[in-house]
Amino acid sequence: MKKGLAEVPGIKCGTALAGIKKTEKPVNRSDLLVVVTDEPSEFAAVFTRNDIKAAPVKVSMEISGKVSGIIANSGNANACTGERGIADALEMSKLTSQLTGKGKFLVASTGVIGEPMPMERVRNGIAEAVKNLGKAKGEKPALAIMTTDTFPKLSFKEGNGFVIGGIAKGAGMIDPAMATMLSFVATDAKVSKGLLQKALKEAVEVSFNAITVDGDMSTNDCVFLLSTGKSSKEITEENYGEFKEALTAVLKDLAYQIVKDGEGATKVARVLVEKAKTKEQAKAVARKIALSPLVKTALFGCDPNWGRIAAAAGAAMVGVDEEKLEIYIGNYLLFKGERADYREEEVFRYMKENDEILIRVVLNQGSESFEYLTCDLTYDYVRINAEYRT
Amino acid sequence: MKKGLAEVPGIKCGTALAGIKKTEKPVNRSDLLVVVTDEPSEFAAVFTRNDIKAAPVKVSMEISGKVSGIIANSGNANACTGERGIADALEMSKLTSQLTGKGKFLVASTGVIGEPMPMERVRNGIAEAVKNLGKAKGEKPALAIMTTDTFPKLSFKEGNGFVIGGIAKGAGMIDPAMATMLSFVATDAKVSKGLLQKALKEAVEVSFNAITVDGDMSTNDCVFLLSTGKSSKEITEENYGEFKEALTAVLKDLAYQIVKDGEGATKVARVLVEKAKTKEQAKAVARKIALSPLVKTALFGCDPNWGRIAAAAGAAMVGVDEEKLEIYIGNYLLFKGERADYREEEVFRYMKENDEILIRVVLNQGSESFEYLTCDLTYDYVRINAEYRT
Repeated sequence: MKKGLAEVPGIKCGTALAGIKKTEKPVNRSDLLVVVTDEPSEFAAVFTRNDIKAAPVKVSMEISGKVSGIIANSGNANACTGERGIADALEMSKLTSQLTGKGKFLVASTGVIGEPMPMERVRNGIAEAVKNLGKAKGEKPALAIMTTDTFPKLSFKEGNGFVIGGIAKGAGMIDPAMATMLSFVATDAKVSKGLLQKALKEAVEVSFNAITVDGDMSTNDCVFLLSTGKSSKEITEENYGEFKEALTAVLKDLAYQIVKDGEGATKVARVLVEKAKTKEQAKAVARKIALSPLVKTALFGCDPNWGRIAAAAGAAMVGVDEEKLEIYIGNYLLFKGERADYREEEVFRYMKENDEILIRVVLNQGSESFEYLTCDLTYDYVRINAEYRT
Repeated sequence: MKKGLAEVPGIKCGTALAGIKKTEKPVNRSDLLVVVTDEPSEFAAVFTRNDIKAAPVKVSMEISGKVSGIIANSGNANACTGERGIADALEMSKLTSQLTGKGKFLVASTGVIGEPMPMERVRNGIAEAVKNLGKAKGEKPALAIMTTDTFPKLSFKEGNGFVIGGIAKGAGMIDPAMATMLSFVATDAKVSKGLLQKALKEAVEVSFNAITVDGDMSTNDCVFLLSTGKSSKEITEENYGEFKEALTAVLKDLAYQIVKDGEGATKVARVLVEKAKTKEQAKAVARKIALSPLVKTALFGCDPNWGRIAAAAGAAMVGVDEEKLEIYIGNYLLFKGERADYREEEVFRYMKENDEILIRVVLNQGSESFEYLTCDLTYDYVRINAEYRT
């Protein structure tokens, strides 16, 4: 069994099939998740920067101190739902506290925007999930938060005396600046609130904030990190690096899975920008290439169209110098100030035969680098999103 | 016959089939255009802001004083072609001067990036186009600069004592901040260099800079405006408004045609943002909605998914207030702080039955507004761009 969130000491998960999404066909996958910590736990959180924040985001942003866990659902985003939405999100949080007899609960939702939460079904679902606490292991918690995801996303790493495990959901609307993305992560290490928040923010920057599927940014994104403190390992300024490294590895693993499962995606591309003047320049160039629909369709067509990569790099408008620029796909040098000497069929074959493609752009203007993950833009992306509701 | 650039007094156009694009099937459409003014003319120009500028852009940016016209080609962008590209663009300009016995020529290219210009064929094409000067009228000049465009784009307006006519090419890679877009416009009014440049800049801002097909920005974009001075009308500070209005009408008409012909597009949407605090806020919100792949696929699916519109508006991160926000599709109010009372089938039918859709977003935070044009994201966009070269 693959390990994830439920395998972190001090964490118990329960799921339920509440039937939250209005649908013609019966849903046969759980859509509600309760995560409970044995003891009240320190937590850190990162939220969407969208001006329009879903009710659960607004409610969770107000929570301070320690929490006893998370209540989350798929099938309805509880976004753009006015005052009723806030009341519903609050009730979800409070009801979970009551039924578990515990402290405060963070709340998160994902799914369709603008529909009221079917609260009767949600209440029954919470009751059922609480009854099932401890039963949802491995993939099960991740399955309960899926929307258009095609596989559950989970990750688990062992550090020196502690573990970190988590789950995520993604698929569409994955923007560089966060995403319709939920991720719940826990560690059994003892970490202070300050270090926990610092580690989360830094790790998110190079993982969830360095991926793109379609450049849209959701109203519901959030990443929660809980510290159950069940292990004897205490994280201090001294061993912070070790903790952050393990956390980054878990988040990068989850981020990779999200891109791999990008709506309709058939290929993942690593867009690696090197030798930039500054980290910001590297990131801006990588982001622009990763977001370019022309680059993403060329990826789908296995077309080593470095011209589109060059045009996207320049469109970042951060002082890319064409004369110094080198562009590689895989190990093939395609451009170095002008078209390099390569055989198109060979690069085509590399792109055709690999599910993971490396796009490496060397600016030769400094020593900073940044890597973005993206996926191809396919017929299925259009199909999934043109037919999402109709 | 539809009027365009060639119908402006003082302008003569000639085209040729030079065979510039490498292709299996014989091309049966002209791919080279020479535009000549009877007398040396004042001109204004707006260029791509991409860091990577094509050779013809670099060459044209250096041209000052008066010009005798434009030499342009489709089939090869002459971008990322190093020193040879610069030499080729210069030669195109100079050869046209020699063969016409005239002054300086602006140069513009569009097509595939990174291939050297087939100069032997270009030279023969220029000679032929010069021989044909005066023969290319109506749609013909516009046809010669098409790439993946499916119809020629031209526009013509009569002002009080002057006319303005122009052509454009667009299709893919149309970014809010300019586009793979060429547009050549002329007027017979007498206009000073200063006023000409001012009018062009202002008119581009609300036309070509207010459209998007896919958010990519090309290396080759340029808009040229020539003043032949053949009419007795002189544009001064006093009647500047009248001139700018006519110019804006021509550029907006061309911009509309570009979006209508967006790669694979079946629908045009007008994204009108009203009652914003500032023009910048209105534009940022309109831009984000117009660029959102989720909004664009919903448009394709005729899905009145205002949730995606709200999410995109918030993703602009310019202080949109959810409680004050109203969202309309056509005349249907869909959202006002929360879901409004509307019948989904009716809005679906409006979207299904119309080729032009109005998305109106009222911020209720001030009195500024901005309109963007966009198109839907379809299977054909993916097909065209995944197969562009292969």
